[in-house]
Amino acid sequence: MAKTEPQPMDVSVDCVIFGFDDDKLKVLLIEQKQPEGQKAIKLQKAIPGDLVGDEESLDAAAARVLHELTSLEGIYLKQFYSFGDPNRVRGLKDQEWLRSFRVHPERRVMTVGYYSLVKMDEYNPRAASFASKTHWVDVYKVPSLAFDHNLIVDSALQILRHELMADHIGFELLPDKFTLTQLQKLYEIILDKKLDKRNFRKNILRTNTVTPLEEKQKGVLHKPAQLFSAHKSLKK
Amino acid sequence: MAKTEPQPMDVSVDCVIFGFDDDKLKVLLIEQKQPEGQKAIKLQKAIPGDLVGDEESLDAAAARVLHELTSLEGIYLKQFYSFGDPNRVRGLKDQEWLRSFRVHPERRVMTVGYYSLVKMDEYNPRAASFASKTHWVDVYKVPSLAFDHNLIVDSALQILRHELMADHIGFELLPDKFTLTQLQKLYEIILDKKLDKRNFRKNILRTNTVTPLEEKQKGVLHKPAQLFSAHKSLKK
Repeated sequence: MAKTEPQPMDVSVDCVIFGFDDDKLKVLLIEQKQPEGQKAIKLQKAIPGDLVGDEESLDAAAARVLHELTSLEGIYLKQFYSFGDPNRVRGLKDQEWLRSFRVHPERRVMTVGYYSLVKMDEYNPRAASFASKTHWVDVYKVPSLAFDHNLIVDSALQILRHELMADHIGFELLPDKFTLTQLQKLYEIILDKKLDKRNFRKNILRTNTVTPLEEKQKGVLHKPAQLFSAHKSLKK
Repeated sequence: MAKTEPQPMDVSVDCVIFGFDDDKLKVLLIEQKQPEGQKAIKLQKAIPGDLVGDEESLDAAAARVLHELTSLEGIYLKQFYSFGDPNRVRGLKDQEWLRSFRVHPERRVMTVGYYSLVKMDEYNPRAASFASKTHWVDVYKVPSLAFDHNLIVDSALQILRHELMADHIGFELLPDKFTLTQLQKLYEIILDKKLDKRNFRKNILRTNTVTPLEEKQKGVLHKPAQLFSAHKSLKK
């Protein structure tokens, strides 16, 4: 019916990889690489992302792009939100890099956001493709990033916190047997706030997400604490 | 770096509007319209969806497209998932319609899914644009739809059920003061299963999502039931 139609867009995927290291919540960033055989340009930090291939599904693209830029494999990536602001790649700070790396830097790009939460010490990212370096950065000290990547990281963090509270994700970051103090610390790090010990214990026990074991901590100097395991429906 | 790049895609939005009518959960469908001045083609039912405009955000596109096809306005649409199967519009059943209505029917189309849950009797859809009719259809009796729209409806239903259980959405579908029997019926209709009355009451009271009022039902023949209101954080 309509004989004029919108221009097609480039579609990309961007990956927010949260790393938990017992003390801190971090996020995986890459540094852009200088283009070869062109004049040097101002580079930025970014989350790993790139265009979806012609015959590639969104999920497959997310896994491939993460692998190409950071060498990481076997990470469960969950789609969480699509970002479609018409101006999201049109800033001056981004256009110089796009003109060096893209055939069609002028095109609108919408991106599908994916995220994951992993134990940092189980993964060892190495930069490749148009990434020159990778960094795990404290999620509360993320610098200014390329494109709308700060918004994407912030959105993923909101989703992560919501899933922690509503769906009790996160047990896979703890040992199989853990104390409620360890669990509380995990919640405090991800939520970025101190929780009241009594209320936390009362609330978490009420959710039926943890099962007390007939076992206590071993090899501690203080009074050993009760151990718990995640309810089986929450284990991976 | 890469000097060949993927082809750009068309990007659309598709809207899953769930309507609650006290007894049933329904979903809003449109019927495609015959193209004018061309030979008649086989038409299909679909959910309301169309391409995102050149300078339009995804949220704005969802609101506009829903309005253009069904005349509905003022509905809160929530983005829930993007569907990017490379073959999602390439089926024979869909290509005839696309060739009649689109300038570039061969292009890959990815779509961003939005959903909403409304009281059916508060909205009165009227077909317009390339929709010839609108229907509220029982969500458990949805016919075969155009494109991957059955998958999109099913995915939205999973999200709706998850949000009902995890976030206790749905109170806005009930009167301000309601009985636990009314609330249980709402859950049973959306989850499509009978719930045990005692367990339902115990669990819902434990979530602190409802507040008992110092008031009972009026004008009923049987023993009047206790009235409740939603916890204020859950009200719209």
